[in-house]
Parts: sequence; structure tokens; C-alpha cells
Amino acid sequence: MNVLNQNHRICSLSDAIPVAQFLAQQFAQTAVERDRIGGTPKYERDLIRQSGLLSLSIPKEFGGFSGTWQDTFNVVRLFAQADSSIAHVFGFHHLLLATVRLFGNQQQWQRWYQLTAEKSWFWGNALNPLDSRTVVKHQDGWYEFSGKKSFCSGALDSEMLIASGVDENTSKLLIAAVPTSRSGITLYHDWDNIGQRQTDSGSSIFERVRVEAKDMLLDPGPLSTPFSTLRPLIAQLVFVNMFLGVAEGALNEAKRYTKHESRAWFLSGVEHAHEDPYTLRHYGEFWLQLESLRLLNQHAIARLQEAWNIAEELTEQQRGEVAIAVATAKVAATRASLDITNRIFEVTGARATHAALRFDRFWRNVRTQTLHDPVEYKIKEIGQWALNDVYPKASFYS
Amino acid sequence: MNVLNQNHRICSLSDAIPVAQFLAQQFAQTAVERDRIGGTPKYERDLIRQSGLLSLSIPKEFGGFSGTWQDTFNVVRLFAQADSSIAHVFGFHHLLLATVRLFGNQQQWQRWYQLTAEKSWFWGNALNPLDSRTVVKHQDGWYEFSGKKSFCSGALDSEMLIASGVDENTSKLLIAAVPTSRSGITLYHDWDNIGQRQTDSGSSIFERVRVEAKDMLLDPGPLSTPFSTLRPLIAQLVFVNMFLGVAEGALNEAKRYTKHESRAWFLSGVEHAHEDPYTLRHYGEFWLQLESLRLLNQHAIARLQEAWNIAEELTEQQRGEVAIAVATAKVAATRASLDITNRIFEVTGARATHAALRFDRFWRNVRTQTLHDPVEYKIKEIGQWALNDVYPKASFYS
Amino acid sequence: MNVLNQNHRICSLSDAIPVAQFLAQQFAQTAVERDRIGGTPKYERDLIRQSGLLSLSIPKEFGGFSGTWQDTFNVVRLFAQADSSIAHVFGFHHLLLATVRLFGNQQQWQRWYQLTAEKSWFWGNALNPLDSRTVVKHQDGWYEFSGKKSFCSGALDSEMLIASGVDENTSKLLIAAVPTSRSGITLYHDWDNIGQRQTDSGSSIFERVRVEAKDMLLDPGPLSTPFSTLRPLIAQLVFVNMFLGVAEGALNEAKRYTKHESRAWFLSGVEHAHEDPYTLRHYGEFWLQLESLRLLNQHAIARLQEAWNIAEELTEQQRGEVAIAVATAKVAATRASLDITNRIFEVTGARATHAALRFDRFWRNVRTQTLHDPVEYKIKEIGQWALNDVYPKASFYS
Amino acid sequence: MNVLNQNHRICSLSDAIPVAQFLAQQFAQTAVERDRIGGTPKYERDLIRQSGLLSLSIPKEFGGFSGTWQDTFNVVRLFAQADSSIAHVFGFHHLLLATVRLFGNQQQWQRWYQLTAEKSWFWGNALNPLDSRTVVKHQDGWYEFSGKKSFCSGALDSEMLIASGVDENTSKLLIAAVPTSRSGITLYHDWDNIGQRQTDSGSSIFERVRVEAKDMLLDPGPLSTPFSTLRPLIAQLVFVNMFLGVAEGALNEAKRYTKHESRAWFLSGVEHAHEDPYTLRHYGEFWLQLESLRLLNQHAIARLQEAWNIAEELTEQQRGEVAIAVATAKVAATRASLDITNRIFEVTGARATHAALRFDRFWRNVRTQTLHDPVEYKIKEIGQWALNDVYPKASFYS
Repeated sequence: MNVLNQNHRICSLSDAIPVAQFLAQQFAQTAVERDRIGGTPKYERDLIRQSGLLSLSIPKEFGGFSGTWQDTFNVVRLFAQADSSIAHVFGFHHLLLATVRLFGNQQQWQRWYQLTAEKSWFWGNALNPLDSRTVVKHQDGWYEFSGKKSFCSGALDSEMLIASGVDENTSKLLIAAVPTSRSGITLYHDWDNIGQRQTDSGSSIFERVRVEAKDMLLDPGPLSTPFSTLRPLIAQLVFVNMFLGVAEGALNEAKRYTKHESRAWFLSGVEHAHEDPYTLRHYGEFWLQLESLRLLNQHAIARLQEAWNIAEELTEQQRGEVAIAVATAKVAATRASLDITNRIFEVTGARATHAALRFDRFWRNVRTQTLHDPVEYKIKEIGQWALNDVYPKASFYS
Repeated sequence: MNVLNQNHRICSLSDAIPVAQFLAQQFAQTAVERDRIGGTPKYERDLIRQSGLLSLSIPKEFGGFSGTWQDTFNVVRLFAQADSSIAHVFGFHHLLLATVRLFGNQQQWQRWYQLTAEKSWFWGNALNPLDSRTVVKHQDGWYEFSGKKSFCSGALDSEMLIASGVDENTSKLLIAAVPTSRSGITLYHDWDNIGQRQTDSGSSIFERVRVEAKDMLLDPGPLSTPFSTLRPLIAQLVFVNMFLGVAEGALNEAKRYTKHESRAWFLSGVEHAHEDPYTLRHYGEFWLQLESLRLLNQHAIARLQEAWNIAEELTEQQRGEVAIAVATAKVAATRASLDITNRIFEVTGARATHAALRFDRFWRNVRTQTLHDPVEYKIKEIGQWALNDVYPKASFYS
Repeated sequence: MNVLNQNHRICSLSDAIPVAQFLAQQFAQTAVERDRIGGTPKYERDLIRQSGLLSLSIPKEFGGFSGTWQDTFNVVRLFAQADSSIAHVFGFHHLLLATVRLFGNQQQWQRWYQLTAEKSWFWGNALNPLDSRTVVKHQDGWYEFSGKKSFCSGALDSEMLIASGVDENTSKLLIAAVPTSRSGITLYHDWDNIGQRQTDSGSSIFERVRVEAKDMLLDPGPLSTPFSTLRPLIAQLVFVNMFLGVAEGALNEAKRYTKHESRAWFLSGVEHAHEDPYTLRHYGEFWLQLESLRLLNQHAIARLQEAWNIAEELTEQQRGEVAIAVATAKVAATRASLDITNRIFEVTGARATHAALRFDRFWRNVRTQTLHDPVEYKIKEIGQWALNDVYPKASFYS
Repeated sequence: MNVLNQNHRICSLSDAIPVAQFLAQQFAQTAVERDRIGGTPKYERDLIRQSGLLSLSIPKEFGGFSGTWQDTFNVVRLFAQADSSIAHVFGFHHLLLATVRLFGNQQQWQRWYQLTAEKSWFWGNALNPLDSRTVVKHQDGWYEFSGKKSFCSGALDSEMLIASGVDENTSKLLIAAVPTSRSGITLYHDWDNIGQRQTDSGSSIFERVRVEAKDMLLDPGPLSTPFSTLRPLIAQLVFVNMFLGVAEGALNEAKRYTKHESRAWFLSGVEHAHEDPYTLRHYGEFWLQLESLRLLNQHAIARLQEAWNIAEELTEQQRGEVAIAVATAKVAATRASLDITNRIFEVTGARATHAALRFDRFWRNVRTQTLHDPVEYKIKEIGQWALNDVYPKASFYS
């Protein structure tokens, strides 16, 4: 798997963007075909492993590059412009590292940070908190996870999983970090959806899986402190940056097509499609949405980074400010990406529906992922803030 | 091909809806799979042939059922609820019969009406007036068509074509009715687009194709009288009824899913998804759009039928009234169908993106076909009427 | 008050529209000034009295003109194009006659129909069912009404009132027809709102007002049968026709202004404002909304008339169909009228904000009246129908 | 006129916000009444004069406070929350100072900066570049201005005017700074529009007005360099901050009303209006728009300030970046302010239309001022940038 030469590996933080751009170009070349076939983008995942970008958000002292959330999301967005499946699992990898940081104790996250940086591990997701079919039994010094789990994005071809289960006694959600290869874990290749087709967001089964006590994230545990509740906000920002990236990617394609392929409508009175007053209007609207979204996104990331830096000292109010900024960006990202990926066809024209272009993949990807949690309840939360000065209640979705 | 029993063939006009409903049910069973594979729905086209519905709009005296435009569009809409590719080619078949009626002389259309009814011919399209690559040479008593033509919906597996070419001398558009099997005509299986995947709207080549003078539609010729300019309005109404049908079909699926599959969101405070206040809001909006569209469509069809009955006596003003009614319905149909097929996912939820359901096909189908001509210029035409009391200028698109 | 000559009084049903048009022209001449001063349009109300239009909806046998609901709403709409305050009280007059018909017994409504037709009575409103401050005591053979009542549109300068109060024993809503001049009734000139400024929708006080038993509408009583629950639907259609009329009136003014007063923007590349591509776009959108609304309105009125004709035999389901048609029209009317009265300024330009034109009155009028009941709950009701096949629950607002 | 005590005058830049807040509170107390009567807010203008805020944007070396554009627009926005007429003329005062800086030579702007700071001059506008009725004749060492001028915001009760006229020989626009009291200038009290009622945006007449050569802004002259073309962008940002301020002011009022005055709808199932799911939805939407707008505004102001600092070295491309940021903010401000000022009524309810509240003034104010230049052409400009990478062409409106 030695395919990336030294120039395309990150040596210091300043390499992150150029390396990501190079990778994004590679992904772009096959994105259409891989959207068609679905499955695991093994080759691309290995490129990412080699690139060093899996250590981007890990502090230098543990072998990483001390990237800020801004750095990490910049890469998510760049990837999403080319391929939002890869952006998803890459963003989730860093989310899962953050999960260890936020839900676990110092010994835990330091160890996993170090191992991840050293071995270029990819982390996958088996946490879906709304799926309560996996049960956790307390054993003597260890825990036994048994049951099913859906929507396990990036679990296939990962080295580590963040898995959740319901405590058989207390019904509380318990979360652990587990090697993907651990005996009893079966991951299914059963993700076949209309979008995000290479995220492997399929199902898994845990059959009496042994999890050592030291791998349980109990201290402080999930969503137990204002700081730990940053976790869902990071998850939401992964989506924001994916949606923004997809919208930008779609717009880039549309722009190229309008300028070089589209024909002026015979009633338009202009010679070229790119002079059409109504086409210009559409592009003006696209820009307006994207530019607003870009600023909302930057604003939310900056709030998150401030909160991240405050760490354990974070207050509920400070956390609330981040939550509102993130929710606002999320709603805007949902709408802008759906609108733009739908409307690019109106500025490219009938011939742009040719299957070989697969311009519909942009819409299919955001249509699929924007359903992660209902946008209506994000708007309601924002309304609670705007009218009643009440911050969103922390949960795995807010 | 003897698969339809007598009960499923139309004997009189009152059978049209039940027969169409039966066929629609057949189409629905395989619509998902046929959307996947694309190509020609040969089996389904043969069912239509056997059903007698290809003669629906043909007057009784020529062997048909004297269906009104209301009758014909009802069937288009019914088909579109199940399968908009089939609705398209079925609607176009009747449009092409109307083309012969409107552009040809009495001897011509009477003969073709009769032959079509008698032999269950399917007519296909090779008329794209914006594609000027086919040239017509005047020969001694006949005409020679040579060149390419794109977007030939329903041409494959048809018995007759309406074909167009540019007069080599005058650059005028010439139109003819030609047997599909005529020597020199090659139809390509090259339609592979994101939607309307079984319309065979691919390309064709005419190589020195001989067209007899008697098959040229020169009297009165294309768009030569107010009556003859009803042709593009019928085409637009085929689309309106397709889009409306798709939106209704999508809504039916969504409704079933919300009620029987979707889960209430954990923050909603309701037990079932179908009680969610924001979900109800979405359905309220869907209804509002569809009901408006249904009335605009009925209004436009009624105006068309009146004009059709007036026939050669039709004035420009009367034609203008139809054009405005049709344009209004077209814009509403474009918007409602795109909005509903996009938003059904917000009332069904993440699991409804499963590829096996192919719920995205509704959007892909209308996204593809709504690009036939730009909606912005329809709005402009309506504005010309609303502000300046000017009717749309007749063309192949208005 | 003898100002209307014979030509401007209705002699038969066919006179209704020309007479209403004449009156509307009179109202239009002073509408701007009367919007400024507010208060009671006494002169205009007397014109209506003389015109005979107060008997429009009364059956011939009782001295009226047997106008259908279509006839009555046509006049409401015509008036609203010129002056929506007058349209409101005129529509409510007929609503209140219908109230007597629907809530009272045959003897009651026949007598009041007859008296109204004979004496050109104007009926006013003191029914607001959400205002429970008026209490009704049972006396010996009569009832005593005491308390306050808000939003009494058209009560001032009326001859008869429909008044409501809460039964002191049962808390049930009791409704009566009472002469406005009855001792103990005080109507306040305290309506001073941003719109609908001449509707006199102010407050009143009932001080131990004696109401005879024979004037209580107890048989069948309010909202007691499917037929009687047509009452709120008629009220809603009065609003629909007001809003539509205002939107049409605003559009007429805007159209005139764009064509004759507005200047082309220096960047537009056109010579006249009425050629601007974006201005045409706005007018196209206006038409689209209005035309949809006109059809939804016609549809709803037709459903109402059918139900009205069925009368006491009306089933809940038949009533439900009317309710959905009315709710749909109401939402569309609310939106179209708000949008158009807001946006006309974008097609007329900065100089059209001159106070002398008072173009803002269109928006102020619909902005005020569209708040009668929240549009969101109409959409929810429609959603209940569209998703769950449940008709709106009858109340004074649905 | 000695009404402001020392605490309410600006001594250093850090006082600007508290002083402006104090003034805004004063303005708020009479804003409703002054909206009613229109005319010149003489008392309020004098308060501003005394406050020292007229020198806010003037560099310290000339007696001002060296406020950045951020500082100045913060005050415009604060004022607009209370009274957008005052915000308008205050913003324009600083725009006109900037006009002298950008269009005049160093001697000119230094002198006027100094005089303005020293004497608390208020500058008024007589520049409308689309009104070409004022003609400039070249005399011996001076210029003679004669003709009419419309839309002269803040000219009444000003000490200095920026006036424009058309060169009789070259038809070029000539601009001068002229004392308002100069012989031959007549300003009319003829501004009576539906909004911005105390901006005195009426007409004026110049009758053979003598302008000294030294007061002509010829070096570098209007829109002659990239730097000088910042002028229209500052004008646009005055509007952005006005619109944003009005929207924020309207939202504050609405929020208070919903929480303390509005009643829950009887079908809502909630006890208080501020718990209604649809009301929360509206507030969520309001926040979303305002927060986007706030960020777009900050972004545009930051770009402007950078360009202002670069001064004469500014390149066309750098100017173009500012222009796009400003245009984007302008479109967003136009839409958000119109939408919010219209929709606040839907979250407050029918009783909030009481004339004493004059809640309609928010809409009337932005409705009036948003027509300064058509928003459609701003969108088109943004589209030219988004699609064709072309910056807006500098003019007095872009």
C-alpha cells in the first residue's frame, strides 16, 4: 500500500491543506464511479492512512500535528468537495478521537492518541444512541456487549470502534473503545442507500464481545459535563462542513458546465448561457447562501475551538453559546446544500442530467446525510434561544 | 405478447380509467427495478398496445374512443404516479397524433388515425426543433432527411416517427411522419440519464432517409395557424400531468411510510411520527401545492379542450388564453413536483434513503424532465401577460 | 340619504355585479382618505343600504335576490379591490344572516330575512367566541347579557347585532340576535389599528341587556349540526375573498404605476420599466399566486354552495370536504395577499412610497385581518387531512 | 439647546457606544409619535450635535475620535433599532464626510474635517446622481448651480451639503461641498412618505447658487479611482446597518410582546404563546436570518476598513472584494428586514395591530428605504461574480 510519496504526506501542520488537496484530487477522479458501485473505498482510506491526516487533530506531544478544529474541518470540507463519503468517515474519525478525549480519562485518551498517531489507525462508529438493541452485562472486571447496532459509519476497514450499549441494570448508555477485530464483532456490508454510498453506514452485531474495564469510557462518561457535551456539537460540525463542501463541489461543477457546455436559451436574447439574466440570478442566490453559510460555519468553529481550549472549566452557558452557533450553521448548511444541489440543474440544462456526469450524486449525498437528525428540531431549538433565552438541552443530537 | 385479458382492454371510453389503473398497478410492481436498469420497457409498452389506450384520443369514426384531452391526461397522470417514463412516452404518443392532426391535412391525419387505431401503433418522437443537424433535401417527388437528432423520446420500439429537419434551401423546419423501420433510420440505445430512464430519449441518425411528399406535414404545416400552435401547449400539458402524477405518487409513498415506518423524534413529545407538528406542517404544505396544481391543471386542460373544439376557427386571443393557463400550470407543476419529491425525505426520515426503496427516483425523474425548457422563461411569459397584457409568442416551447 | 339613483340599485340578481362595481368606484375615490381618518364609513354604508345589496343572499320569497354564495363573495371581492374595510363589514353582514339561518329555527330566520330585506338592515358582529367576558343570566322568559366584548366589526351603525355570552350556569356559549339600539348596549369608537381602519372592530359593553327568549339562537344552536358548522367556513371565505380582492386591487395599482410612472433602472439595458426582466419575473410570480388562489377560492365556494343546498341533511364528511377546501384557500389567500402587497413596491420603485398614494394600506389591511386566526394552525389542519385523512374539527375558526 | 450633560457626550472612542445607547433610549421614547407627525427631528438632531458623535469618524488630528467604520456603523445600527430615520441621516452625515475625503483633495477634506469637528456640523445630502435636473455653469473662478434635486435626505437642518450637478459642457457629474445657508438654495419640507418619515428626503431648488472653485470636489473627483469608488459601498453599508438595526428593533419588540402579551392559540395545546411550536419556529427563522446578516455585515465592514486603510493604493481587485462583500450583505439585509418586520405580527397576534403600538413602522421604514436601488440588480452583480468572476462595475449604486 505504499502509494503516496513523501510530498503527499503531512510533516507539519502547514502541509495539511496541500496534502488534503492532493488527496481530494485523487478522490475526485474516481468519485463518480465509486458512487455507482458503493462499498468500501479501501484504496482511498489507505491513502488517508499514509497521508498522516488521521493524526491531524492529535496534539504533537502524542505524535500528532496539533491541528485546531479549524484545521480539521478545512480538510473535511476539502474532501467533501470531491467525495462526501470520504469526508464523512474522515470527519468521524476525528470525532471519535474527540469522543475518547471527552468521555474518557487522561490515561485513556493519551494512550489512544499515541497509538492512533503511531499506527495510523482509522476509528469507526458503532455508537448510534437511538438504537438500544445492544445490551451490556457487567462481568468480573470486564463488560460483555451483545446485540445489534445500525448506522455504523466507517466501521468496516477501521482499526478501532467506539461502541455503545445499554447497561442491563441501569439502562444507562455505556460507551467503550474496542478494537474492530475483537472476537464477536461482525460488521455487515449492507449499506446500500441513495447517497453517502461509500460510508459503510451499515449494521453490525456484537456477540458476547469482551470489553476490558480499562476500555470503558466511564470517567467522566458520556455527556456528563459541559465539556463532554461538546461531542455532539463536533458531530454536527462534521456534517456542516460536509454539506458545505458538497455544495461548493456541486457549484464548481455547475459553474464549469454553464460556462463551457450550456447553451443560451433561444428566447434569452443573449449569446452565451453565462450571460442569461435569470442564470445570473441563480448564481447570485447560490453565492448568497454559500457565503452566509461559510461565515456561520467559521463562527461556529471559532466558538467550538474557544470552548475546547477552556476544556474542563467550560460552563453550561459557554457550552450553550457554542450549541447555538452550531445549530444555526447546521440549519443553514442543510438548506443551502439541498437547494444548491437541486438547482444546479437549472443553470446547466437538460443535457447535464446525463448519467455519466452523475450530477445527482451531490443531492443524493446531502439528501441522505441531512436526515441524520430532523432540521425542524434544530430550528425549534434556535427559536427557544431567540425567544426564551434558553440554550439547547445537550443530547447526542444537540 | 397476448398477456392482457379482455377485462383489461378498453372497449368504451368509460373503461379508460379502470384499464389505466390496472396497467399502472402492473407498472408499479417493477418500476423500481426498471428505474435501475433503464432501457426500453418493451413488456409494458406491449401491455399498453394491447390495452387499446393508444387509440384513446382518436375519434370513434376512425376507430378510436373519442377521448377528450381530460381523458388522455387522466391516464398520463395515473401512469406517472407509478412510472413517469411510461407516462412520458404514452403522453407523447398522443401528442404526436395531435401533431399530425394540427400540422397535416385532413387526408393525412384521417389515414394515420385509422392505421394507428387499427394496428395499435405507438408513435415516437424525432422532432427536437432546437437540434438543427438534420437537413432536408428536395428530391423529385420526395424528400431526403440526413443528419442527427437528439432527445428522441419513445422512438425505439415505435411504429411511426414524427421527424423534423431543416430545409436545405430555406432553413425552415420541415416535419414528416415516417415509419420507424424506414431504411436509413438508426435509433441508438444511448439514453442513460439520471431520470426518466425508460423513455429512450436518446439519439438517432437519418442517413439519406426517403420521405414521400404525401408524408410531409406541409398543409398547414408547423405552427402556421393559431390552431396548429396548440401543439406545444399539448406537449407542455403532458409534462404538467407527468409532474403532477410523480408528485402524487411520491406523496402516496411518503404517506404510507410516515404512518407505518417512521419513528417519532425523541424530542417531539409525540408517540407516533404522524402526530409530529412539523411533519403535519410539511404535509399541509404538500397538499396546498398539489391542490393548487390540480386546479390549475384542470383549468388549463379545460381551456385546451375548448380551443381544440373550436379547431381551425381558433383566434390568436383564444389561443393566448390557453397558453397562459398552460404556462401557469407548468410553472406550478415544476415547482410542486421538485419540492415534494425533495422534501418527502423530511417526513419519512433517514431509513427511507435505503436504495431498495429508490425514493430518490421521483426527484430524479422530475429533475430530469423539468429541464425540457427553462421554467424562468415561462415565468417571464406569464409576467408579460400579467403586466403588459401580451400573450406568449407561439413556438415549439410556448 | 337619497343619493343612489335607480340605475345603481339592484332589481334582480343580474344587477348585483354592475351595482357593486358602481359602488366600488365610489368607494375607491375616497378610500385613501378614509384609510387615513379611520372611523365609520357612514356615507358608504348608506350607499350599500340603498343599493339593495344587503338583501343579496336572502331568498326571493323573503324579499331578497336569492344570490348564491358565489354571487355574494363576488361582491365582497369587488368591494375589497377598492376598500377592504367595507368588504369586511359587507361580508360579515351576510355571514350574520347566515348565522341566523344556521343557528336559529325557521321562524327566526324567516322573520329576520324578511325584516332585513324590507328595511335594509345592516347586521353587525358582537360574537367573538374567544372573549368570555360577557355573561348570560337566565331570567323569567328572557335572558340578561352583561359584560364586555372585543372585535365587534361592523357593530357601529348597524341595526341588528349577533351577540354572544357565556351561560352563567353551564358556561356554554349562547348566541342571540339583538337590535343594536337595545337599552344597555354601548358600542365604542375605539378601533384604531394599523389596517382595516373603517371596520369599527372595537369594543362594546352589555349592561344588563334584555334579550327575549324568541331572539335566542338555541334551535339548533351554535355549531350543533354539520350544517350549522358551515358558519365558520363562511366566515373564513369572507376573509379569503377580502384578501384576494385586496391583492387584486394592489396589483391593479402596481401595474398602472409600473407602466406609466416607474423608470427603467440604469443598469437594466431596457428603455421602460415594464420591459425589465426581473420586473416581469415579479409579475409572473404575482399572477401565479393569484391565479392559484382564484381557482382555490372558486373551488371552495362551489363546495360551500353544494353543502348549503344539502342543508340539514349535510353529513360530517361532506362538511369536512368543504372545510378542507376552505382551509386551503385561506392559507393561499393569506400568503398571496401578504406577499403581493409587500412586493408591489419592488415593481413600482422608491417614488411609489409617497404617502399620498398610501400604497402601504394594502399590506396594512391584510396584515391586520390575516391575524384573525393563526395561519399555522390552518396548515396543521390541512396536514392532518393530507397525512391522516382526518377532517378539521369544527369550531368557530375551522 | 444645552440638554446633554457631560456624561452623555463622547470624550474618547470608548464612549461612543454608551453615548449612542443613551441617545437611542431618548429617541425610542418619541419614535412612535415622530413617525406619526413626520418632519424634522430637530431636538434629536441637536442631541446628536451635542453628543460629539458627528465627529466619530473624523481622525483625532482634526479634532475627531478616529472611529473605524466598525465604530460608526455600530452607532448607525444602535440608532436604527430605535429610530431608522435618525440612523439614516446620521449614517449619511459620515458618508458625506467620507465623500469629501474620497472625492476631494487633502486641503479640502482636512479643512472640512476640522470645521465639522469644531462646530459640530451636520452634513446633508443633495447628490442624487440619477436626477440630472441641476446644471452647472462654469463662471470666472466659480461655478453656478441651477436646478432641482430630489431625495435630499438630511439636507434640512444641516450646516453643509454635498450637492451635485451636470456640467453644462461635458454632461459630467460635478460635486461640491456647499454651506446649506448659501444664497439661492431652497430646501422643501415636502417629504411625506410611508416610511423613513423624519429623514426629510424631500426636494430642493438651486437658483444660480455660487460655488467657489475651491469647494468643487474635482481632485480626484467622483468615482475616479478605486479608492474613491468606496463611496457607494459606504452608502450601501449605511443601509445594511439601518436594515439590520430595524430588524433587531422589531424583533426586540416582538419578543417582549410574545412573552408578555400574546395568548396561546386555543388549538395549540400549550399554555403560553411562547411555548407554541410554530411560534418557536418563526423565532428560529428570525434568528437564522439575523445571525447570517450580522456575520455578513461584520465581514463587509472589515473588508471596507481594510480597503479604507490601504487608501489611495487600493487596487481594482481589492475594491472588487469589498464590493462583493457589501452587495451580499445588502441583499441579505433587504430580505431579512422585510421578512422579519412583516412576520413579527404572526408571533404577536391580532391585538398587536393596535395603532398606538405602530408596529407597522418597522416594515414601512425598511419597505421605503430598501427601494433606494433595486435588490434584483445586486443579486445579478453577485451572480456575475459567482459565475463569471467579474466584480461589480463601480457606480453610485455599486
